[in-house]
Amino acid sequence: MFLCHMPERSFSYQQLFDFTQSVFKKIGCSDEHADTATKALLSADLRGIDSHGIARLSGYIRLWEVKRVNAIPDIKIIHETPSTAVVDGDSGLGLVVAPFAMKIAIEKAKQVGTGWVSVQNSNHFGIAAHHAMMALEHDMIGMAMTNASPLVAPTFSIDKMLGTNPICVAAPAGNEPAFVADLATTTAANGKLEILQRKNKETPVGWVQDAEGNSSTDANVLKKGGALLPLGGDREHGSNKGYALGAIVDIFSALLSGANYAPWVPPFPAYVPMPAQQPGKGIGHFLGAMRIDAFRPADDFKQHMDNWIKGFRNARPIAGQEKVLVPGDPEREFETERMKNGISLLQQVTEDLKVLALKFELPSL
Amino acid sequence: MFLCHMPERSFSYQQLFDFTQSVFKKIGCSDEHADTATKALLSADLRGIDSHGIARLSGYIRLWEVKRVNAIPDIKIIHETPSTAVVDGDSGLGLVVAPFAMKIAIEKAKQVGTGWVSVQNSNHFGIAAHHAMMALEHDMIGMAMTNASPLVAPTFSIDKMLGTNPICVAAPAGNEPAFVADLATTTAANGKLEILQRKNKETPVGWVQDAEGNSSTDANVLKKGGALLPLGGDREHGSNKGYALGAIVDIFSALLSGANYAPWVPPFPAYVPMPAQQPGKGIGHFLGAMRIDAFRPADDFKQHMDNWIKGFRNARPIAGQEKVLVPGDPEREFETERMKNGISLLQQVTEDLKVLALKFELPSL
Repeated sequence: MFLCHMPERSFSYQQLFDFTQSVFKKIGCSDEHADTATKALLSADLRGIDSHGIARLSGYIRLWEVKRVNAIPDIKIIHETPSTAVVDGDSGLGLVVAPFAMKIAIEKAKQVGTGWVSVQNSNHFGIAAHHAMMALEHDMIGMAMTNASPLVAPTFSIDKMLGTNPICVAAPAGNEPAFVADLATTTAANGKLEILQRKNKETPVGWVQDAEGNSSTDANVLKKGGALLPLGGDREHGSNKGYALGAIVDIFSALLSGANYAPWVPPFPAYVPMPAQQPGKGIGHFLGAMRIDAFRPADDFKQHMDNWIKGFRNARPIAGQEKVLVPGDPEREFETERMKNGISLLQQVTEDLKVLALKFELPSL
Repeated sequence: MFLCHMPERSFSYQQLFDFTQSVFKKIGCSDEHADTATKALLSADLRGIDSHGIARLSGYIRLWEVKRVNAIPDIKIIHETPSTAVVDGDSGLGLVVAPFAMKIAIEKAKQVGTGWVSVQNSNHFGIAAHHAMMALEHDMIGMAMTNASPLVAPTFSIDKMLGTNPICVAAPAGNEPAFVADLATTTAANGKLEILQRKNKETPVGWVQDAEGNSSTDANVLKKGGALLPLGGDREHGSNKGYALGAIVDIFSALLSGANYAPWVPPFPAYVPMPAQQPGKGIGHFLGAMRIDAFRPADDFKQHMDNWIKGFRNARPIAGQEKVLVPGDPEREFETERMKNGISLLQQVTEDLKVLALKFELPSL
């Protein structure tokens, strides 16, 4: 038995929940905020987006340590109309600010059909799907976007000008599970590069470029001045479209709200210096909710969504593939499996959590 | 001089406008509808999207001949809330129905901050940008989407389940020209295949697949049972994201409105049989408008948009590229040039227009 060399250890969702919640309380979060933040953070681990879950907990805490995250934010609406609002997150955890904003979007949708909330002065919000999916139980379509620190070079650019800027749309169905599309507007997210780095493998062509803007397959290229590429990879394969989508997310999240944008978005790692120029406050999000019955009866919509989903599931798969998937399928399968069998964490992550336990005098996981 | 062998002939915008307007009047369109439809159609020629402009005029007329286009539609709202509406296009030209719906979106945005209109029972609406850009003069962000007949195979699918389903977002700037991103959710649009067909060239890898779902570079593959690929090309390059984006457009345009969706969207060519199953009415669009000052003062937003745009224009270009472009730049340059120097049409297109002139007893172009 060489336990100390085991690369992964498995924990129940409840174990991770209790630990994470305790950490957020230790930095001063209210019970309610700690609960909200923990649910948002761990939804990533449940859904198989390991790069955005508890693996980032120590990163959030470091942002609190350098006073970039405010654990007791006064989150508030600073401007509104019947269908819109701008929220100032007061430097709170995005994990708390985004659900606050999404609730406002849902309330406005109840009143006037749709609600749209742009957020300034926030921080990383975890996975977009968690927030968008809040709309589902209200028979609404939910949307969530966020900008992020610049890792992506637009088409023809050497410079990194955009974040991975994800878009999520969640739409309810009837007997079928909900449609949930959650996508970074890059060919590959940073988490996929990290997996290749650990395996010492190269990336496919079209994921990254080097510091001079040449096509590269070096999974470590971001540390050497390289960049992620927009969805499409290069101009010939439509990277101008991935670039445009990332730009739309930036405009909705930050230009509408007054947050920082483009290359001036604050970095997630606390040790990376803040950009010299700051045209806005913190990072920006955009949350939306559309009440289905503001368009047609919800039951009609859901029945047709079931028909739509079944149509795609019944499409003929290409040789070597078992079936055609509907957006949200892989994440839902992860969630079912991990809720039942637990969540495996890499040794590096559990070591990070041990350090947090020591720091905050909590029982180690 | 071998005029009859010249491949292209140039016309002024006004010449094409007068001719197109006359044709629409000949099929029975009101003066107002003929004007609206002509502007929408020719905006594609001006902006360099030749596949969606006057080249399609004879196609629209054939749809009228087989009674799939109603030249005197009673376009109306069939359901609404303060921020939403569903419009029944009464089988009208999408070129007329979409501007009608966009005006409603703009009116609702004036009242409650945003307006969102889903449209059923319509036809091909030309380019999305024309409709989205209607919002700009009102200091609003405009959005336009449409579903389309199935040419695209989702990730892992042999079957064609989605159209090229474009998304357009137009956002006003101050001194800089507006940001206008108009993108099909496929790697390459059908128009690009047609250009390669004429040149007898192959496509790059990642644009199309053959009738068995294998990667192909045959520009004629759609005629042989093949399919366009979602933006990304294959799973390794994020085609699941392009597929998800096309699906979102389908849900917003058709599932919300009661139009046909997925593989059951009516084909554009009048000679292609209609799908046996029709879960809705006609094709669907989705139009949206967000008033900037429903979020922050329009002048603040525009000033930051200028700063955003200049940031991208000043990004360092990779070797061999002159500059980094902002979405909308190429189309605007086309528009300036073509408004001044005229619009060149392929011989095949002018021949088509001559047939129309004969049919409707109009002076030939």
